[in-house]
Amino acid sequence: MGDLGRVPVGIIGASGYGGVQLVRLLMDHPRVELVYLGGESSAGKPFSDLYPHLVNLVDLIVEPIDLEKIAARCQAVFLSLPNGLAYQIAPELLAKGCKVLDLSADYRFTDLDTYTTWYGGDRHDREVASTAVYGLPELYRDRIAQSQLIGCPGCYPTASLLALSPLLKQGLIVPDTAIIDAKSGTSGGGRQGKINLLLAEADNSLGAYNVGRHRHTPEIEQICSDLAGHEVTVQFTPHLIPMVRGILATVYATLRDPGLVREDLVTIYTAFYRGAPWVKVLSSGVYPQTKWACGNNNCYIGVEVDARTGRIIVMSAIDNLIKGQSGQAIQCLNLMMGWEETLGLPQLGFYP
Amino acid sequence: MGDLGRVPVGIIGASGYGGVQLVRLLMDHPRVELVYLGGESSAGKPFSDLYPHLVNLVDLIVEPIDLEKIAARCQAVFLSLPNGLAYQIAPELLAKGCKVLDLSADYRFTDLDTYTTWYGGDRHDREVASTAVYGLPELYRDRIAQSQLIGCPGCYPTASLLALSPLLKQGLIVPDTAIIDAKSGTSGGGRQGKINLLLAEADNSLGAYNVGRHRHTPEIEQICSDLAGHEVTVQFTPHLIPMVRGILATVYATLRDPGLVREDLVTIYTAFYRGAPWVKVLSSGVYPQTKWACGNNNCYIGVEVDARTGRIIVMSAIDNLIKGQSGQAIQCLNLMMGWEETLGLPQLGFYP
Amino acid sequence: MGDLGRVPVGIIGASGYGGVQLVRLLMDHPRVELVYLGGESSAGKPFSDLYPHLVNLVDLIVEPIDLEKIAARCQAVFLSLPNGLAYQIAPELLAKGCKVLDLSADYRFTDLDTYTTWYGGDRHDREVASTAVYGLPELYRDRIAQSQLIGCPGCYPTASLLALSPLLKQGLIVPDTAIIDAKSGTSGGGRQGKINLLLAEADNSLGAYNVGRHRHTPEIEQICSDLAGHEVTVQFTPHLIPMVRGILATVYATLRDPGLVREDLVTIYTAFYRGAPWVKVLSSGVYPQTKWACGNNNCYIGVEVDARTGRIIVMSAIDNLIKGQSGQAIQCLNLMMGWEETLGLPQLGFYP
Amino acid sequence: MGDLGRVPVGIIGASGYGGVQLVRLLMDHPRVELVYLGGESSAGKPFSDLYPHLVNLVDLIVEPIDLEKIAARCQAVFLSLPNGLAYQIAPELLAKGCKVLDLSADYRFTDLDTYTTWYGGDRHDREVASTAVYGLPELYRDRIAQSQLIGCPGCYPTASLLALSPLLKQGLIVPDTAIIDAKSGTSGGGRQGKINLLLAEADNSLGAYNVGRHRHTPEIEQICSDLAGHEVTVQFTPHLIPMVRGILATVYATLRDPGLVREDLVTIYTAFYRGAPWVKVLSSGVYPQTKWACGNNNCYIGVEVDARTGRIIVMSAIDNLIKGQSGQAIQCLNLMMGWEETLGLPQLGFYP
Repeated sequence: MGDLGRVPVGIIGASGYGGVQLVRLLMDHPRVELVYLGGESSAGKPFSDLYPHLVNLVDLIVEPIDLEKIAARCQAVFLSLPNGLAYQIAPELLAKGCKVLDLSADYRFTDLDTYTTWYGGDRHDREVASTAVYGLPELYRDRIAQSQLIGCPGCYPTASLLALSPLLKQGLIVPDTAIIDAKSGTSGGGRQGKINLLLAEADNSLGAYNVGRHRHTPEIEQICSDLAGHEVTVQFTPHLIPMVRGILATVYATLRDPGLVREDLVTIYTAFYRGAPWVKVLSSGVYPQTKWACGNNNCYIGVEVDARTGRIIVMSAIDNLIKGQSGQAIQCLNLMMGWEETLGLPQLGFYP
Repeated sequence: MGDLGRVPVGIIGASGYGGVQLVRLLMDHPRVELVYLGGESSAGKPFSDLYPHLVNLVDLIVEPIDLEKIAARCQAVFLSLPNGLAYQIAPELLAKGCKVLDLSADYRFTDLDTYTTWYGGDRHDREVASTAVYGLPELYRDRIAQSQLIGCPGCYPTASLLALSPLLKQGLIVPDTAIIDAKSGTSGGGRQGKINLLLAEADNSLGAYNVGRHRHTPEIEQICSDLAGHEVTVQFTPHLIPMVRGILATVYATLRDPGLVREDLVTIYTAFYRGAPWVKVLSSGVYPQTKWACGNNNCYIGVEVDARTGRIIVMSAIDNLIKGQSGQAIQCLNLMMGWEETLGLPQLGFYP
Repeated sequence: MGDLGRVPVGIIGASGYGGVQLVRLLMDHPRVELVYLGGESSAGKPFSDLYPHLVNLVDLIVEPIDLEKIAARCQAVFLSLPNGLAYQIAPELLAKGCKVLDLSADYRFTDLDTYTTWYGGDRHDREVASTAVYGLPELYRDRIAQSQLIGCPGCYPTASLLALSPLLKQGLIVPDTAIIDAKSGTSGGGRQGKINLLLAEADNSLGAYNVGRHRHTPEIEQICSDLAGHEVTVQFTPHLIPMVRGILATVYATLRDPGLVREDLVTIYTAFYRGAPWVKVLSSGVYPQTKWACGNNNCYIGVEVDARTGRIIVMSAIDNLIKGQSGQAIQCLNLMMGWEETLGLPQLGFYP
Repeated sequence: MGDLGRVPVGIIGASGYGGVQLVRLLMDHPRVELVYLGGESSAGKPFSDLYPHLVNLVDLIVEPIDLEKIAARCQAVFLSLPNGLAYQIAPELLAKGCKVLDLSADYRFTDLDTYTTWYGGDRHDREVASTAVYGLPELYRDRIAQSQLIGCPGCYPTASLLALSPLLKQGLIVPDTAIIDAKSGTSGGGRQGKINLLLAEADNSLGAYNVGRHRHTPEIEQICSDLAGHEVTVQFTPHLIPMVRGILATVYATLRDPGLVREDLVTIYTAFYRGAPWVKVLSSGVYPQTKWACGNNNCYIGVEVDARTGRIIVMSAIDNLIKGQSGQAIQCLNLMMGWEETLGLPQLGFYP
């Protein structure tokens, strides 16, 4: 492959769990060369100071954020920053010719008023924002391939939307009956010293949080509404689970046609995701475990119909740091560059 | 307390996790003396052969099951056996004057046809079964106090019903909208060498099982129907969580009156559980963690209302082996004996 | 028991994991009334603000630290503060007639120079310090019973010393061959937001820390030297284990008499701990699991002899927050008050 | 790389955790094609029946074990079977021209009497066995490259020997003072339904097992003796840790030269492992965490010297299923085939 050349890319904000996962995946990608890591607080330090096991494996030094230099060196830039920073950086990088893949919420919303309602801030980048594409390849493959600016989905929305999309797109459910009971490992809470994320608190425990007001709700609703062709409201409840990685979304909805059986739904899901290499629709009667998705970019989906209640129950499992974050961003990059959608991404993960 | 005397009790089937928890709690109970442990496979062995840390702490020998002798020695007997065995034993124990507390499913159903549909078997004990009371003290305190035969609730039904009861009893929700997304630690799977319960498989993983067909569903529906005054169908989905103990039930339902706010519900729940020492209704905005309930007999309940969707979300957390099993059985015994409902049961648990 | 009266006690510094465990145990103690909780940062708040599951169970308000008032209200005071604070408080409390049980390192050392070498600070309380007794009842039962000031042992020293004492006291090993490889759950790291204690970092991982320089080393050596009658140097290595509670110390030493076999050692240990209700010497061939000690005040000890190498291997397991900290402090209080050494302390713990 | 061709390989006994890890690694190897999976009990089934997450990812059917056919199709065969089976199979495969890499204990011993003492059985393959090479490339790189039959090391010996080798080879320690306190995740116990490996038992617990008699002891001693040039006896104690993957070996030994300091040892280790791409000697003062090695083939080594005791403490961390088993076998295959030692093996793993 040597003669094909490698595309230089950079990451701004690589110190968190999503960042280190992105670094690892990009290092293993056959068409990419990771040439730049930018960060404010750790500028000047070797990246392996943050993650000592990467000593002599990742030799990059974290550099100060100088957009001019970054644009000169990188063809594509991943932004892995807290919400509210990307939109202050992306316009300049785009203007200088970089492709931008933002992992925060900044470019996920077509309606910026929804963004500011839930995230605050003052958006002066409306023109740029209007060119952003929501980076869920299973739904927006073609538009992603044409875009220069990707708003990569949140981890919960990825699992939730892959579970709901066939139902909404084909009008199979009563939309507002959709309830998403989502469960996430604690790595989703980030690499920060919070009491509730301590092993002593979180291990052997389990609870819901931000019930009815988690900021991934409007993101899910935006895409659901797009799929359904009208406004959709969903019930979304996240839970913190005593494990490191993984998200399971258990989705409930009332079927319009109570005569549908499980096998019908498996057929429908299989057809819907026929061209999607990263979605694995499971056989009738098989339900996903999050461990299956650990370390790979797959989304495993199982479906069940309860004839007693007329509901469908869909379960989707992903690795929150890969398909839910950095892997999906690379999947988008692959599309933007015209590469195979699967290029450089892990398929097999690890087990157990 | 010495002069009050201690009541002799026995356990048939103490080798499992529920059994060892029951042993521990009965040993610490100030009005009870545990005089008999019965089991087939380990008859003749010290109980501490099964649980070596109890050596010199629990000195009982597991004895063969001889109902005559048991009845002669015990005033009350706990049956902690696989489903389908208690109903072959209980009638004789009752006839000989023992109080019986059954921890299996055998005496939970008023309609034995429902029992045989879900559990199989051939019930010839219909008369005896008709005297059984469902052992959820928060709902059936008075009847338990009068009864000689208690069908102790399952772990999932306990968490689910304590979350749903105030809503159904007072007609606050549209009953058939009730969805119970339940999460349990792996001790609920018992002390048996199953691959899916291995640490290597279950740790850092998460999944649903028996979706739409778990045998706790008809049990929940029976009591919900009793509370509502008409047939109620619920959606119930259990999940296996990578932890040892604890159940969280996240319950969703559509409110009849969309004007109700969270504080209203806290007030309603607090009033409903006023005389219930083991239910802790949390303040507005506080959601339970299962760790809070670990090692104690409490059920922690948090409520939330989502004005956007018109739904109430109720979260209840218990220790599956205590309030979900052996602690609740002792709570019933306390009532049957005319003792304080809290006697001998742990309130504070352990943390972290 | 009501007519016996309850002794009023207080805790200064109850916000940490040791503190909340101490609160729980004191609440359940039949001869004690917990009347005071003192703390600077949370003064004025209900204690249950720190631990919400204790709402309506522990109704105490954290109070400012006013030694005058404390002494007026409490007969005994537990100090659960960072190292270096107790010695600024204890002298005044003692002068006012309180018994003091310090859980920090401040009063563990007979040689205060050793203390200042390892912990820093400037000790002006030498006279008071000279009256302190090391609170390991299995070794110093009588002196504890006579004392007003107890320096309660660290968690690692408790497990290590109970494993080593019979060997050193009876001259069975070459003292300087003693190697202690100790493993602790992360609750020993305290309730603070440190990155390395996050579930995402600590779960499914394992490592040593402070190798050759942990501050529990001189504490262990002081008591070993006292037992041996001459200076003893030990190798001590702590490890952080992906679990919440528990310490296992695996202790290696060369036997003086290579003819001793395992059964001899079990006999020796059993005899040594005959009057010690909280030490459980296991049968030949049984090794302790830390889970056995979880939630109780026991120390489980297993011994093995390797005839090939001439070494003894002793394994001791405790709950770091109970026998390793708060439970042991109460064990000392029981002795100081002339009560049964086992009073009010949990024997059975929880399992699994 | 397509034009270089791929070498057809097979696995006999792929159903366990080592097997599935080997499958995954071989699937990702650029010079290998996995063409055969053999097993008795699951012959005829798709491999993905055993590991459902591999559906459509690993399409192989488990086949009956027919050595003739295997040899016709495979250039190299991995044996991943219980101890005692490989030596009944390997001679025929070798005779038919296959390279054989055995992951059991069968070909690890130069002295077959030692093998039969610890493992039993009746070895009639002495001639074949005498050609086997111990598959630890860091010590026996050249011999492995020349061999047709590799006895791949056990997981504990790999971690232990990489920690001890520089010391023994250079005569830096008093050999018989070596104590190995080893800690392993439960995946080392295999995919079998044992009670002690259940999450409910093993989680939040910790204990030693097979103290003084684990079968990895003679294996470690054989290689230590080879390095030292005389018989060496070591103390080896394995512990089960509440985690899935990873081994940490904490090794203690008395230095011959008490003047050596930590930095000297780091220099010595770094030099010793200069040509070893999979050993990462850590900087002075850095100790390894097992999580660092998870999912990669690295062995991380940290060293410490305790001037007070004259001992060196070496800590080595590996992934028991990769560097401790399947990854190391592939490392050997790479050498046997004349490929880069690092080819097709994961360097970065996953974190957190």
